[in-house]
Amino acid sequence: MIKVGVLGATGYAGIETVRILLNHPEAEIVRVVSQSFVGQKLSDVYPNLRGICDFECCALDEDDIAENCDLVFTALPHGASKVVIPSLYKKDVKIIDLSGDFRYNDPKVYEQWYGEPHSAPDILAESVYGLCELHRDEIKTHTLIGNPGCYTTCSIMGLAPLVAEKVADTKSLIIDAKSGVTGAGRSASLPNIYCEVNESLKAYKIAAHRHTSEIEQELSLLAGEDIILSFTPHLVPMQRGIFATCYANLNKKLTTEEAVKIFKDFYKGEKFVRVYDAGTLPEIKNVAGSNYVDLGIVVDERLNRAIVISCIDNLVKGAAGQAVQNMNIICGLDESTGLSSAGMYL
Amino acid sequence: MIKVGVLGATGYAGIETVRILLNHPEAEIVRVVSQSFVGQKLSDVYPNLRGICDFECCALDEDDIAENCDLVFTALPHGASKVVIPSLYKKDVKIIDLSGDFRYNDPKVYEQWYGEPHSAPDILAESVYGLCELHRDEIKTHTLIGNPGCYTTCSIMGLAPLVAEKVADTKSLIIDAKSGVTGAGRSASLPNIYCEVNESLKAYKIAAHRHTSEIEQELSLLAGEDIILSFTPHLVPMQRGIFATCYANLNKKLTTEEAVKIFKDFYKGEKFVRVYDAGTLPEIKNVAGSNYVDLGIVVDERLNRAIVISCIDNLVKGAAGQAVQNMNIICGLDESTGLSSAGMYL
Amino acid sequence: MIKVGVLGATGYAGIETVRILLNHPEAEIVRVVSQSFVGQKLSDVYPNLRGICDFECCALDEDDIAENCDLVFTALPHGASKVVIPSLYKKDVKIIDLSGDFRYNDPKVYEQWYGEPHSAPDILAESVYGLCELHRDEIKTHTLIGNPGCYTTCSIMGLAPLVAEKVADTKSLIIDAKSGVTGAGRSASLPNIYCEVNESLKAYKIAAHRHTSEIEQELSLLAGEDIILSFTPHLVPMQRGIFATCYANLNKKLTTEEAVKIFKDFYKGEKFVRVYDAGTLPEIKNVAGSNYVDLGIVVDERLNRAIVISCIDNLVKGAAGQAVQNMNIICGLDESTGLSSAGMYL
Amino acid sequence: MIKVGVLGATGYAGIETVRILLNHPEAEIVRVVSQSFVGQKLSDVYPNLRGICDFECCALDEDDIAENCDLVFTALPHGASKVVIPSLYKKDVKIIDLSGDFRYNDPKVYEQWYGEPHSAPDILAESVYGLCELHRDEIKTHTLIGNPGCYTTCSIMGLAPLVAEKVADTKSLIIDAKSGVTGAGRSASLPNIYCEVNESLKAYKIAAHRHTSEIEQELSLLAGEDIILSFTPHLVPMQRGIFATCYANLNKKLTTEEAVKIFKDFYKGEKFVRVYDAGTLPEIKNVAGSNYVDLGIVVDERLNRAIVISCIDNLVKGAAGQAVQNMNIICGLDESTGLSSAGMYL
Repeated sequence: MIKVGVLGATGYAGIETVRILLNHPEAEIVRVVSQSFVGQKLSDVYPNLRGICDFECCALDEDDIAENCDLVFTALPHGASKVVIPSLYKKDVKIIDLSGDFRYNDPKVYEQWYGEPHSAPDILAESVYGLCELHRDEIKTHTLIGNPGCYTTCSIMGLAPLVAEKVADTKSLIIDAKSGVTGAGRSASLPNIYCEVNESLKAYKIAAHRHTSEIEQELSLLAGEDIILSFTPHLVPMQRGIFATCYANLNKKLTTEEAVKIFKDFYKGEKFVRVYDAGTLPEIKNVAGSNYVDLGIVVDERLNRAIVISCIDNLVKGAAGQAVQNMNIICGLDESTGLSSAGMYL
Repeated sequence: MIKVGVLGATGYAGIETVRILLNHPEAEIVRVVSQSFVGQKLSDVYPNLRGICDFECCALDEDDIAENCDLVFTALPHGASKVVIPSLYKKDVKIIDLSGDFRYNDPKVYEQWYGEPHSAPDILAESVYGLCELHRDEIKTHTLIGNPGCYTTCSIMGLAPLVAEKVADTKSLIIDAKSGVTGAGRSASLPNIYCEVNESLKAYKIAAHRHTSEIEQELSLLAGEDIILSFTPHLVPMQRGIFATCYANLNKKLTTEEAVKIFKDFYKGEKFVRVYDAGTLPEIKNVAGSNYVDLGIVVDERLNRAIVISCIDNLVKGAAGQAVQNMNIICGLDESTGLSSAGMYL
Repeated sequence: MIKVGVLGATGYAGIETVRILLNHPEAEIVRVVSQSFVGQKLSDVYPNLRGICDFECCALDEDDIAENCDLVFTALPHGASKVVIPSLYKKDVKIIDLSGDFRYNDPKVYEQWYGEPHSAPDILAESVYGLCELHRDEIKTHTLIGNPGCYTTCSIMGLAPLVAEKVADTKSLIIDAKSGVTGAGRSASLPNIYCEVNESLKAYKIAAHRHTSEIEQELSLLAGEDIILSFTPHLVPMQRGIFATCYANLNKKLTTEEAVKIFKDFYKGEKFVRVYDAGTLPEIKNVAGSNYVDLGIVVDERLNRAIVISCIDNLVKGAAGQAVQNMNIICGLDESTGLSSAGMYL
Repeated sequence: MIKVGVLGATGYAGIETVRILLNHPEAEIVRVVSQSFVGQKLSDVYPNLRGICDFECCALDEDDIAENCDLVFTALPHGASKVVIPSLYKKDVKIIDLSGDFRYNDPKVYEQWYGEPHSAPDILAESVYGLCELHRDEIKTHTLIGNPGCYTTCSIMGLAPLVAEKVADTKSLIIDAKSGVTGAGRSASLPNIYCEVNESLKAYKIAAHRHTSEIEQELSLLAGEDIILSFTPHLVPMQRGIFATCYANLNKKLTTEEAVKIFKDFYKGEKFVRVYDAGTLPEIKNVAGSNYVDLGIVVDERLNRAIVISCIDNLVKGAAGQAVQNMNIICGLDESTGLSSAGMYL
């Protein structure tokens, strides 16, 4: 049994990590840390857990964590991870960090997009980017995982096959992404209230969203060249889900069927990746509540342009589910342990 | 391993039964029957199941079912159950029926509310009403279970303690119930389309909904007297959930705390019933996706009237979850097997 | 042209008042007061108004208001009205107050439900309760109107005919009310954020909501006896609307048709009241965006109990629309001036 | 007073036309045609109109229409317009057609996208494309208007300035469009029901949606060269609104401010077009319920690519509102008559 701590358990990514771990046969939650709710039961903050997980939230005590936990998930507010993680890492706790702090190969990229130097570049250098399907082997040998962002996972997986197989014009990449509202977190800010979000739709941080840099890092790696691209996030009135519509001009003529085959080959054997046959397309309903990535491809032959639809649940494959998938990898478990639930559909 | 068939698998109650069974460690789905989709994969109709349950839907063949299934869930359109079930029952298949056809002690009550005589009163006489918390012992010894309706489960469980303990004026009972839209099933009718339901709210079948008769049957049993009451169903723009606001004048002075204690005592030891402490109230979010019944009680001391809030997920405790709970009971398994998931909250 | 000021213009009730006044042919907005957005354009706070109403929000200056406005709508936070209004009232400005501060005939009732003595009982004594259909004649002769609450308008209008005509058992009244989320106002509080409200349903302040006292005051007046009753508010995931399901035991046998006739007679000639024929029921969709009150009645003959459905738009008939209707009355205009729009339906 | 008939009044575009005309001071509805509801009151089909528009729906009688109507709006199912309109046109009725049948300059383009030859090419030749801001002068002199589609209006207006001013690389145009569900019309089809649409998101008809051809026709005209482009429609769980995210590589370096200026110049004096200042972006909330087109522009200087956000209400500027705007133009009225309402915001 892996003894697990969840730091930042009362945010939406944290509580989803708890929810998934409660169904995990090989992991046991032993510490639940939430600075905002110290001394309260987790099930008073999230009453869906009453009678299921009545743990008391505690304050962060690194020694206590190091002593009692084999592995921690850190779902802390931006910037907090950088402070906590180096110390835990040095105490030999395995760490899966859900923040943006340990996702970069190059601290300069971090600095460019986050507006400040990285405070622990040495620790950053020992982390690995936890997109399981692309970095499985490295993940196995590391104990600090920078768990990818939700937009990022969805976007990278939508374009990876075309870029890796060199059939995409890398100057033409555009990702038009749509997110459910859980992506904005559990924060009581005005733009986040029901009547401002419901029955509306908006774009935000156009040409400026930090996840752009993660996507560029990973696609550049796959391409073997520097890629820059357009990434446009939108907020959609629904709870869960990231939907990325990805555009890529093709270097060579391909039919939709041929493009689908490239995807099926690239993701062959991947349990959590479902490539749709030509003529069918994924929807958020099909993935919400699950760890799956659903991919649909259309080639517009008039324009010789591929349009790829990539769908995930932002809280699962885009956060807590992939984090648990990473735990399974670094702990030598079957990768899908505790993650095999189908999406809810309803 | 219990070999299970699901009849009517492509309706919303049917597919939820499939979804829950896929996580059940002691049951194995061996037949999936859907007259509308014979020959199609279940995962083409519900793509959330791709790679998880790619069974082909088959037509109903009673001999094949009897030969291969220990137990079937019948989630058939209204009226269809009455035709199919007697024959399966005689072939010694255990049956949990999600329709209204086998929920009555008295075929005359069926006739009164359904507008036609019951076609199999002899079989009806051998069935038991599958509200697990109230009829557990009878369920154990029966093989045909009339699984209760969604409104019914929620309403009965909200009033049962007050009625059984004789503290409610049985002439004053009012149930104002609100349902999510999955309750209307997967039917392409105009009142069911998005733009007619969304951003609206309506009541329907006031003083005339069939579930009234189930509620009256069960509360009368508990009271030892004939009860008739008001039941008002409403349609709410959300996917899952039944929320019943129940009103009962009290025969004697009670504080909220005393009333809460009556509920806690009545449901003592019940895994799936959560009685909230005085001052806190349940919400749909806390139960959606789970088999829990959440109950909150307030006594209005000005009026000496109790107001009880009862919340369930209509597809789980109100249909598929309770059906699986019934399977667990009649098969001698721990009652919560395969049903221990927390609600999704998000 | 009536020169109008809107105080508290950037809350939801305030901005709806502005929106309605912009289509009013006899009123002209001359001052827009918002303490939170002094110096900003109203159309920067609510960009739907760009190019339509680019007024700058100003701070409250009572002398300036008195000098430039014939009439003001005060849509201020709770408690603020009591401070501002006495002074404006003494300066001879006509006032329609959307807060709860000037809705009571008896300051002791205010104290009982608001938990503090009323600070201006002398001014309170000069105000009139602005439920237009019930107090039209008094409104004509007053210049300070306590505009009714949203739950209140909907509930009173649903029960008034039965109470006034003495056919209801006044000890049996129950109002189960459901509100859209705009009723919670534009406040960035955690329970108000999208992911906490969406796909859920809850009751709150059971047996303790302040609007109960307004409903009791008005129904007692109509009955000529003291009435106390149950009022249970619920929050529904939709933007606009109040839906009240009202229960009353009947003193005498009535058919649904007879009950409908009582309603049609009671509201005869009322432009904004639509009583539905027996067999049809109102829905929120039919009133949202309009000043109408839609009423549907069913008598449950088994129980000799009437169930009345009352629907309004909480922001229009429940706040800004009725406020403008009050302005029309006290200014001698046709009561429906600027208020004749149909609901949006979509 | 213009005497107006609405053909196909009970569809969503038809009923929105009725709703808008009811507030129009210079038009009077004299005939309401709905084949599905002949003999029923319009206000029984849409009860929001009770007491406001209790017209009876009649069957189509061309002679009666020609005799009594100066102008008709035809909001008929696809294909029906082609049959009805030639005959009405020959009887000298002014026609604003909301279908796709009279939107093309070249019947071959119609045939290519609609899969059958146009049945009235001679009448088609006498129609004009009713995008008011681009074809105002021609509209004035025509009596048959092909009112543009919803996706079309939104997309063309988002890209027109860049294309007309020759700053866009016309080979790089991509329109990623998102629609509210009213766009799917009032049809009781399975994909249209609440539980299939809610809490989900999907793309459809990728590289194959008919509106693509309208967009290409109009942008080609503006560019003076043949343009083909990507158009990807998505369905979003909200009622009203089209949101187009438009991508165009730039031929020359531009800042966001310079690009905004191009838009402001291009749409100078246009009452219904609101170009946002650099740094602010439109949202659906700001236009829903109104005839406005809101435009926001960002230049991604890293990529020298413009991203334009274009928002409209699909039922208003995308259908009924623009239809009334066209009526105003051809009848010599002020173009905004009856159309000046602000969006609802809430």
